[in-house]
Amino acid sequence: MIKTDILIIGAGPTGLFAVFEAGLLKLKCHLIDALPQAGGQCAEIYPKKPIYDIPGFPEILAGDLVNNLMEQIKSFQPGFTLGERAETIKKLDDGTFVVTTNKGTEHHAPIVAIAGGLGSFEPRKPLLDNLSKYEDNGVAYMIKDPEVYRNKRVVIAGGGDSALDWSIFLADIASEVTLIHRRNEFRGALDSVEKVQELKNQGKLNLITPAEIIGLNGENKLESVLVRKISEAKEEMFLEVDHFIPLFGLSPKLGPIGDWGLEIEKNAIKVDTFDYQTNIPGIYAIGDVNTYPGKLKLILCGFHEATLMCQSAFQKIHPDKKYVMKYTTVGGVSGFDGTKKEAPKAVVKKIE
Amino acid sequence: MIKTDILIIGAGPTGLFAVFEAGLLKLKCHLIDALPQAGGQCAEIYPKKPIYDIPGFPEILAGDLVNNLMEQIKSFQPGFTLGERAETIKKLDDGTFVVTTNKGTEHHAPIVAIAGGLGSFEPRKPLLDNLSKYEDNGVAYMIKDPEVYRNKRVVIAGGGDSALDWSIFLADIASEVTLIHRRNEFRGALDSVEKVQELKNQGKLNLITPAEIIGLNGENKLESVLVRKISEAKEEMFLEVDHFIPLFGLSPKLGPIGDWGLEIEKNAIKVDTFDYQTNIPGIYAIGDVNTYPGKLKLILCGFHEATLMCQSAFQKIHPDKKYVMKYTTVGGVSGFDGTKKEAPKAVVKKIE
Ligand SMILES: Cc1cc2nc3c(=O)[nH]c(=O)nc-3n(C[C@H](O)[C@H](O)[C@H](O)COP(=O)(O)OP(=O)(O)OC[C@H]3O[C@@H](n4cnc5c(N)ncnc54)[C@H](O)[C@@H]3O)c2cc1C
Ligand SMILES: Cc1cc2nc3c(=O)[nH]c(=O)nc-3n(C[C@H](O)[C@H](O)[C@H](O)COP(=O)(O)OP(=O)(O)OC[C@H]3O[C@@H](n4cnc5c(N)ncnc54)[C@H](O)[C@@H]3O)c2cc1C
Repeated sequence: MIKTDILIIGAGPTGLFAVFEAGLLKLKCHLIDALPQAGGQCAEIYPKKPIYDIPGFPEILAGDLVNNLMEQIKSFQPGFTLGERAETIKKLDDGTFVVTTNKGTEHHAPIVAIAGGLGSFEPRKPLLDNLSKYEDNGVAYMIKDPEVYRNKRVVIAGGGDSALDWSIFLADIASEVTLIHRRNEFRGALDSVEKVQELKNQGKLNLITPAEIIGLNGENKLESVLVRKISEAKEEMFLEVDHFIPLFGLSPKLGPIGDWGLEIEKNAIKVDTFDYQTNIPGIYAIGDVNTYPGKLKLILCGFHEATLMCQSAFQKIHPDKKYVMKYTTVGGVSGFDGTKKEAPKAVVKKIE
Repeated sequence: MIKTDILIIGAGPTGLFAVFEAGLLKLKCHLIDALPQAGGQCAEIYPKKPIYDIPGFPEILAGDLVNNLMEQIKSFQPGFTLGERAETIKKLDDGTFVVTTNKGTEHHAPIVAIAGGLGSFEPRKPLLDNLSKYEDNGVAYMIKDPEVYRNKRVVIAGGGDSALDWSIFLADIASEVTLIHRRNEFRGALDSVEKVQELKNQGKLNLITPAEIIGLNGENKLESVLVRKISEAKEEMFLEVDHFIPLFGLSPKLGPIGDWGLEIEKNAIKVDTFDYQTNIPGIYAIGDVNTYPGKLKLILCGFHEATLMCQSAFQKIHPDKKYVMKYTTVGGVSGFDGTKKEAPKAVVKKIE
């Protein structure tokens, strides 16, 4: 059982920054995210696109914002349970919570902060009869560890940035990469499209378009896929492969959290702006996942909400301590790893 | 009369970021600040110190944060009335406001946003009989334009960073700089103290310590100051000078805004967290100057408050328009100067 002070569900920008604010209050955090990496929408949907409304950054790539946040919280040593969806919550007699994921990982904490954004990112799956038989047995919807594909034969399906970018990436690792798409046209960053064209020309990548996968075969694990060209002739062919990765996009679903007894309005969790607490004491909701009068689904708002939430969490965890806020500039930042950042001190010195 | 959409009182980080959020909504802003430069506390009190809790910046100097914000809002071409204190407000029959400064400058706007921080920064003045006679006639408490001192004889009094830094800066410009302090010890950044020692050694700066100014003389403008050494002998001497700049620190005072009929609690203005509006419709309060349940006087909170405030201001200015928020990443940023920043567009392109 993983134990922490604040269990954060969702490792988007809001959840990540909450780790920093909690750390200033000497509270430890652990984050759960359904995605294989931290960063939420910024990392999953638009890592290479610029954001212009992060205060102090005239322009920053979404992926760089996530990297900066990871750097900012590093010394507070957050724990991560990635690639798992928070599924159930149980309130114990002492008022603390146990949150269990779809893979059975249990987390125990006095405070739960839901920073779930638009919901847990769930892959759009192709409609194929025996798909579930091969899930984790050759079929995957997200790439958690690219090394799994070293010297393997991989088929990727899809026509967007993910399909393009992973085809490029795996072309160097896999023994064979085949990219299949229902159209001849791909939609993505210009340089990704051009790079795939180049790999195709060099024979480092097979391209089958317009086409789709219509069948999966294999005894215990995936051994081949059946491809059908989208054309008059509808030619079909078997491809021997080790892995099939359909990248048809991820769609966020509030999912199981919707059944936790929280007050929901417009698919978001109602909170009080005093501390962003939900109707269940000890459970907070911050960032895109919450709603209140005036709510805007913006990153900078999540930062503010996370900050006020942590003050309230501190009071719940330490009901008898009075916290006196110190500016970081004045008090510095003391990491849980023993590091300390602080402003150079003024000197008092004679001039003669 | 200066006219604008949102008149912002206070050009600290909160007021500056409000210009950006207003600009996204195509609303123009004008800022008034008692200080000669933008940046509020960050620029005036600790420009060279690092802040650690600005989201996305593991560390940033307060002065750099201000510079970044100025860069971020540049294309929205804000107007500035600097070195003047907003003194009175008048509500016209049509519900718009006229704000007048201590120097008589008038500003007219349908919306007023008070981003006054801890208040208007007012200098701590030395206790000297005829001080007011020489104000703006040789005596100044802030340096608005260093060129005023070119080839002049300047006396600076004070023992902190401002006194040290301006002594260093003016040593290159003035014909003669004399630094006077009540103690032998100065309190400031190590390199500033060392630099002053060096200038003293090189004869580029006169130092008189421990000493104080006890008199000012001159017919129509300052011609000399009377200095007394703090010692047994209490020697006194006249110094012929053109300028006397006492830098004894600035202390913020809510001041005249306290008499505008706004609900005040603990020296701050009460607001509703829906849109950070005060008890007077059309007047908002954002940043350190406001208070509400859960309030934290942090820069990142001011950013959030400024953002929600602008949405409400938009609705007041355009009661019949429905604003549909667009992410900056998706819609880009269209400056009032004709510039447009936007993310590179995805292409739809055939790969063959
Ligand atoms: C194309 C695009 C452009 C954008 N541009 C801007 C912009 O310019 N400015 C701006 O401010 N905002 C922008 N946004 C919005 C911004 O990305 C979001 O406001 C921000 O990501 C919200 O952060 P968050 O941490 O609250 O949630 P998210 O980033 O959505 O992260 C939530 C995380 O929680 C996880 N999660 C949810 N439920 C569970 C569960 N049960 N178990 C495990 N994990 C779970 C999800 O997998 C996800 O990773 C943009 C969004 C998009 C899609
Ligand atoms: C040493 C120090 C360290 C700090 N460290 C941190 C930190 O690490 N993190 C953090 O988040 N915060 C920190 N702060 C606090 C932070 O600086 C403030 O929260 C922030 O400056 C508030 O911004 P603001 O724009 O609301 O107000 P301010 O920065 O106070 O600006 C308000 C401006 O309004 C002007 N003004 C007021 N009334 C009038 C008037 N009537 N007419 C004209 N002008 C007027 C003032 O002159 C001033 O320039 C620190 C503060 C100090 C002093």
